[in-house]
Amino acid sequence: MVLSDGARAFLDRPLTAVLATASARGRSQATPIWYMMDGDHIVINTSVGRVKLRNLETNPYLALTVVDPQNPYRYVQIQGQVARFDRENGARDINRLSLRYTGKPYGYPGGDKPENRVTIVIRPIRVSGLSA
Amino acid sequence: MVLSDGARAFLDRPLTAVLATASARGRSQATPIWYMMDGDHIVINTSVGRVKLRNLETNPYLALTVVDPQNPYRYVQIQGQVARFDRENGARDINRLSLRYTGKPYGYPGGDKPENRVTIVIRPIRVSGLSA
Repeated sequence: MVLSDGARAFLDRPLTAVLATASARGRSQATPIWYMMDGDHIVINTSVGRVKLRNLETNPYLALTVVDPQNPYRYVQIQGQVARFDRENGARDINRLSLRYTGKPYGYPGGDKPENRVTIVIRPIRVSGLSA
Repeated sequence: MVLSDGARAFLDRPLTAVLATASARGRSQATPIWYMMDGDHIVINTSVGRVKLRNLETNPYLALTVVDPQNPYRYVQIQGQVARFDRENGARDINRLSLRYTGKPYGYPGGDKPENRVTIVIRPIRVSGLSA
């Protein structure tokens, strides 16, 4: 599954995504998240203890939706699957994401710590919206 | 469950929400959608045949997340449950939503028809983000 050029150009912008996951009991959670492309994969990052991580450890299927803040009719939805969890590069990748979105290294607000960060690599299965 | 004043004021703005639903097999879908408040309920509207409707008929639990396009750190997530599906008022409500978001009645693009519209009334269970 390769993203279209249009979807890829759209996702190259540092827009805020909404990550939707579902618990073992099928309860949806949807929260804003940073993301970045890595070839044909999408990389996000979270912390140990977060509901999104717990959900994805149980059910690796997710949807990541990016809406253009200037034009809500332009969006990309990626339905995908966790390819791998990567704790080793968690701190490195949250810094990469922070630089992409804020221009600065990650500040670890609210007691968050580098050793708690986990990278989640996503394999897209289906793309809709802009690519449709 | 009553929304805080802050969350309510935020949701009164005609911002684009992302609706997350999960299929019977736990596959998440997340797509942009219009919404409006109705007392302590949230009203959305879709068409017969859409995945989101099929998902909610099987699994009534959803998350509706609204991110401030001017400030991605400001958001409200409502995790809720379908209180009822209402086909009788589906056409009326998509017009109300269209007026709220565009100032004009709904134009029925892409072969959509008034008789296909379904209102979904959501009972909030848990609110996070701004209200937290």
